[in-house]
Amino acid sequence: MKLATLKQGGRDGTLVVVNRSLSHCRAVPAIARTLQAALDDWDVSEPQLRQVYEALNSGAFNDQMPFDPVLCHSPLPRAYQWADGSAYVNHVELVRRARGAELPPEFWTDPLMYQGGSDSFVGPCDPMLALSEDWGIDLEAEVAVIIGDVKMGTSAAQCAPAIRLLMLVNDVSLRNLIPGELAKGFGFFQSKPASAFSPVAITPDELGADWRDGRVHRPLTVHINDQLFGQPDAGTDMVFNFPQLVAHVTKTREMEAGSIIGSGTVSNKQGDLNGSSIANGGVGYCCLAEVRMYETIETGKPQTSYLKFGDKVRIEMFTTDGNSLFGAIEQEVKPYPG
Amino acid sequence: MKLATLKQGGRDGTLVVVNRSLSHCRAVPAIARTLQAALDDWDVSEPQLRQVYEALNSGAFNDQMPFDPVLCHSPLPRAYQWADGSAYVNHVELVRRARGAELPPEFWTDPLMYQGGSDSFVGPCDPMLALSEDWGIDLEAEVAVIIGDVKMGTSAAQCAPAIRLLMLVNDVSLRNLIPGELAKGFGFFQSKPASAFSPVAITPDELGADWRDGRVHRPLTVHINDQLFGQPDAGTDMVFNFPQLVAHVTKTREMEAGSIIGSGTVSNKQGDLNGSSIANGGVGYCCLAEVRMYETIETGKPQTSYLKFGDKVRIEMFTTDGNSLFGAIEQEVKPYPG
Repeated sequence: MKLATLKQGGRDGTLVVVNRSLSHCRAVPAIARTLQAALDDWDVSEPQLRQVYEALNSGAFNDQMPFDPVLCHSPLPRAYQWADGSAYVNHVELVRRARGAELPPEFWTDPLMYQGGSDSFVGPCDPMLALSEDWGIDLEAEVAVIIGDVKMGTSAAQCAPAIRLLMLVNDVSLRNLIPGELAKGFGFFQSKPASAFSPVAITPDELGADWRDGRVHRPLTVHINDQLFGQPDAGTDMVFNFPQLVAHVTKTREMEAGSIIGSGTVSNKQGDLNGSSIANGGVGYCCLAEVRMYETIETGKPQTSYLKFGDKVRIEMFTTDGNSLFGAIEQEVKPYPG
Repeated sequence: MKLATLKQGGRDGTLVVVNRSLSHCRAVPAIARTLQAALDDWDVSEPQLRQVYEALNSGAFNDQMPFDPVLCHSPLPRAYQWADGSAYVNHVELVRRARGAELPPEFWTDPLMYQGGSDSFVGPCDPMLALSEDWGIDLEAEVAVIIGDVKMGTSAAQCAPAIRLLMLVNDVSLRNLIPGELAKGFGFFQSKPASAFSPVAITPDELGADWRDGRVHRPLTVHINDQLFGQPDAGTDMVFNFPQLVAHVTKTREMEAGSIIGSGTVSNKQGDLNGSSIANGGVGYCCLAEVRMYETIETGKPQTSYLKFGDKVRIEMFTTDGNSLFGAIEQEVKPYPG
């Protein structure tokens, strides 16, 4: 099943069911006006939404609307929780290597996670807004899950059934603000501006056999200014799977429906700089920081610059048949209009 | 104006207006079913809610309900943002001194802030639940504000009018989990379980002249097991005021209505251990960690233990006439029932 949120209808937008090919959609006010409302009562809403989805796929409705991602907000325009892991430890290891530090061994067994702001996400086709290019604007392409209610202390295995929906996310980072914030010891804050999620959230069954072991086994495709920049496999080198990330969150507190948990920047372990870029036959990267880390490790300093106003980012994922699973996140970097 | 949320009526509860003396309340479904709904459209809802408040205070309703904090959830049972500052830098300095570290000078000019979980707060009279006493369960008594919409890059002065409501909060910390988490470099996560807020949220005008300079100039009263433990003044030694904390959050992103910003543990600068405790004529503390830091600095190690199952915490604030402003947070530490 595929769900999206149109911007019309207030701060939480309007929930629509989208057909599998992403060509059409239909509002479902009699079932749930918003995605959060559907998640609040998922056992009741899910089978009803699924009926609409099947009918949409079979062309049963005369009054279906064309689906246009530009009209979409993020599936949850605002959420009660957005917690982002760093499940691709390769990425974390590169960060450390670039500054000459060792990766603590427990990073392979205990997830790194930060709590992000969730009050004001932006839409999948909205600009990445910043007041200054000097902040070091970077994309971070990730996979995220939306969760149902989970009790405190739930095991990872027991967390797995609470995964309701999958999305893609551009978890924008302001790289030049990170060192100062991390030095203060409390983690990211100003260095993490508003994230954007894919136009469509999908139930795991849409992935078929590519959803297994709590991971999405498909390449995540990233373009910068229409050039292929990365296509690492989201199922490869994901050290902690989604149920493990959920269990990390709920070790000391309950989690309520509608919480979003991210994978961290998707990153595949590759040999070296020359072998890792798309141009050189590698799978590329999901953030600019990663290529800059390879550059730093191999040449002493980064060569690639962060995003500038006017730069465009596209993040998407395809089935083996080349069909877009989530629709594309397509954002242009722009100055904040104030 | 005073507002509260009864637990009945779904995940977001039911908004009620409470009279000034906290004896009676009244649901206002024709104005707003929930506090978040009122905040989403504050310019419209606020004057209507205020009319009900004035009528309640003058005893104009025959059908008002008795107000019982035990029936309350936190004013926002779940919120789209909960960001907590460390505005009482004295507390941060003590933390550092206790471990023999210097406070970086920029801590006096750049707020420390962490993003907390906001999907599942607990009610003001609900237990503080933990799976283990070994986590080092500590209260943290604070003041918090609920904010309206704020644009990115807004100055502190311009943030001031966006402060909608004030609350008290028990921002529970699991002290024994903190060192490991901070060592990982991403800040708090598992060490911050569910917070509880005061039964009532109040508009700043309820404080009269005690709300000035973006600070609440009243003592915050903390009891542990019915013994007075602290009554520091929340307006004293608050290095960053609330508008400054809001401006910190919105430096790189917009803030949406219903976001909660906390002051951090209230802490007044005092001479030494002997002079700081209530028994010795000091103003006491708003968390156990603080007395343990004085003990560490002066005797080499902490003497006071963290909270145990069965311990009770009460946090409140009074007018000069001795009337409770927010109602009391009254929580007992209990094992999580699973």
